[in-house]
Amino acid sequence: MKQQKVIHGGDIFQAARRTGLSPEDIVDFSGNINPLGIPEGLKTFILDRLDTLGHYPDMEYLALRTALAAYAGCSADQVMVGNGGVELLSLLFRAQRPKKALIPSPTFNEYERDLNLLGVEVVPYRLKEELDYDLDLEGLLSAFEPGIDLLILCNPNNPTGRRISREVLLSLLDYTREHRILTLVDETFIEFVKDISASQVVTLLPQYMNLVVLRGFSKFFALPGLRLGYMMADPSVLQWMYRYKEPWTVNSIADAAGAFLVSDQALFQTYREWVLKERAFLYEKLSGFPRLKAYESEANFFLIKLLHTDMTASDVKEHLEGKGLLIRDLSSFYYLDPSYFRVAIHTRENNLALLEGLTEILQPA
Amino acid sequence: MKQQKVIHGGDIFQAARRTGLSPEDIVDFSGNINPLGIPEGLKTFILDRLDTLGHYPDMEYLALRTALAAYAGCSADQVMVGNGGVELLSLLFRAQRPKKALIPSPTFNEYERDLNLLGVEVVPYRLKEELDYDLDLEGLLSAFEPGIDLLILCNPNNPTGRRISREVLLSLLDYTREHRILTLVDETFIEFVKDISASQVVTLLPQYMNLVVLRGFSKFFALPGLRLGYMMADPSVLQWMYRYKEPWTVNSIADAAGAFLVSDQALFQTYREWVLKERAFLYEKLSGFPRLKAYESEANFFLIKLLHTDMTASDVKEHLEGKGLLIRDLSSFYYLDPSYFRVAIHTRENNLALLEGLTEILQPA
Repeated sequence: MKQQKVIHGGDIFQAARRTGLSPEDIVDFSGNINPLGIPEGLKTFILDRLDTLGHYPDMEYLALRTALAAYAGCSADQVMVGNGGVELLSLLFRAQRPKKALIPSPTFNEYERDLNLLGVEVVPYRLKEELDYDLDLEGLLSAFEPGIDLLILCNPNNPTGRRISREVLLSLLDYTREHRILTLVDETFIEFVKDISASQVVTLLPQYMNLVVLRGFSKFFALPGLRLGYMMADPSVLQWMYRYKEPWTVNSIADAAGAFLVSDQALFQTYREWVLKERAFLYEKLSGFPRLKAYESEANFFLIKLLHTDMTASDVKEHLEGKGLLIRDLSSFYYLDPSYFRVAIHTRENNLALLEGLTEILQPA
Repeated sequence: MKQQKVIHGGDIFQAARRTGLSPEDIVDFSGNINPLGIPEGLKTFILDRLDTLGHYPDMEYLALRTALAAYAGCSADQVMVGNGGVELLSLLFRAQRPKKALIPSPTFNEYERDLNLLGVEVVPYRLKEELDYDLDLEGLLSAFEPGIDLLILCNPNNPTGRRISREVLLSLLDYTREHRILTLVDETFIEFVKDISASQVVTLLPQYMNLVVLRGFSKFFALPGLRLGYMMADPSVLQWMYRYKEPWTVNSIADAAGAFLVSDQALFQTYREWVLKERAFLYEKLSGFPRLKAYESEANFFLIKLLHTDMTASDVKEHLEGKGLLIRDLSSFYYLDPSYFRVAIHTRENNLALLEGLTEILQPA
């Protein structure tokens, strides 16, 4: 059985060991940033519920699933919760046992790691640099070679930040439904897009039995330490996954906090407004660097390519790490050469520190 | 692939749905009870660390593993942490791929569920009622039929509460080492035994490469909602398991809380003294019922058999559930007929309520 070592972003602990800095002194542009810190309301809420640690969580997570369904626009029986998206991806693949997966790439590495563990063949479809890594329907349709029974779409895509258009999505769902190809749409970053309702596909679940949607709390709510993700699909699809599911993988704090967070409309609006404003600011500034190309993004990060320089992303990373700024080198991704890196949108103060660090290393000769 | 529905104790949410009571009004004798509630020190500690939810946990969980190693008497590289024992059992079995497992029974059902999922043959070894379900070395040794490559010992055993003697344990470990049989000792309840140092086998890891030890925080620390277990073995055994392990299955709160709890000697002593005292009290009272046999226990629960009555454990359970007292019917366990049930040790007030409820239904005709 083949196994790849996947390098994850956001590991401030490893960065700390590398640099000798303490984890608190590292500004993480590689992961997910909550600009406002943990909401005070959530802290109070958790404190009031610490006694729930003394029970096993509700094995059915009924309250949590009901809250998530109301938030995402489906019914509770279409929702399964898990220990981050990682658990749910693994369960989906173990339950469905696909043989061959088509995956527009570059994209999130974990899909391939999980599929490899199960011996599933992965066919990467090369997203075109000349299209700014947007998904082209015709190209992808021509890539459906015989035997493909799984399509994975990350929307908006990590690490490119690009969104798939509604037309392309619907055409693909029609095609895969007709050909009985399971289609996973990873909406981990969906709350960051400009027009959520025109981008999400959860409400299409009743029409597409072959559709599975993944979301979580690590990115938009910026709580990766909570370990909470959820998958939405027809109950018959989830039923197969439950056969493999271990009980209680979401702990009591995450159980309670998840329901609390998706019920807080004001928090949602505040986060959205902050991200959209800061994204516009950072995009404008990054676009001013003659030696960089920043791809316009509908996520909370930017794919960036180094131009007109012998420097690699690794050089940039090393320089910034010396200043306690952790970015994501993308050399482990398909079709991205060593000139690509990714930065997340951070607080204004830290964004300015990043821009300053980039100016130092990229100033005109 | 075969799959069993395993009924777990401690599901107050299902009991609440069944009885129409609210979960808070159910006294759970089926699970694990923290008599003191969540320690105040832990509450403060968690509150101070809520910001860690904003990062992924340390993928290596180095601080936590170091604390656990110091607590259990081994080294950090001999420790793997996981989302409760459930995750670690599954990883161990998936990594080791045993063919045939010998399991003294009745015991914890989850071993068999996991092994069945992987197509492993399970050979239950019948613990003898006439020996009060103590493990007899000679009988077990004669049960090692050809092909057995895994032995699972729960010590003290769930649901019998019986401890395996040091001599029997050492003889078994010698035998399995010689015959290259992986031996899992589940020490989930080890902190409840009278003499821990003479009962635990963690310190024997350097001598027995075939030994794996499982522990967790759900029972003694009574924090099943935390979802934190740990497995101890030779690093080479853990290395195989890491190939299958999903990252970050322990959330940030559990990561911090685990290290805190095992470092608190005073808390450990307080819990121990309380359990040992209350266990003696409850055993004495239960032994006074002519229609019950309570087995002497080194865990935080009692195996109980109904005597001289047509009533079943299910009748007793129903009667007690009407009073908001949830006990564990053991009919789903090997070799236990419908006259067996299990009760955990609770607070004095609740133990008295249980005794009263038992008196009502078991009073002499």
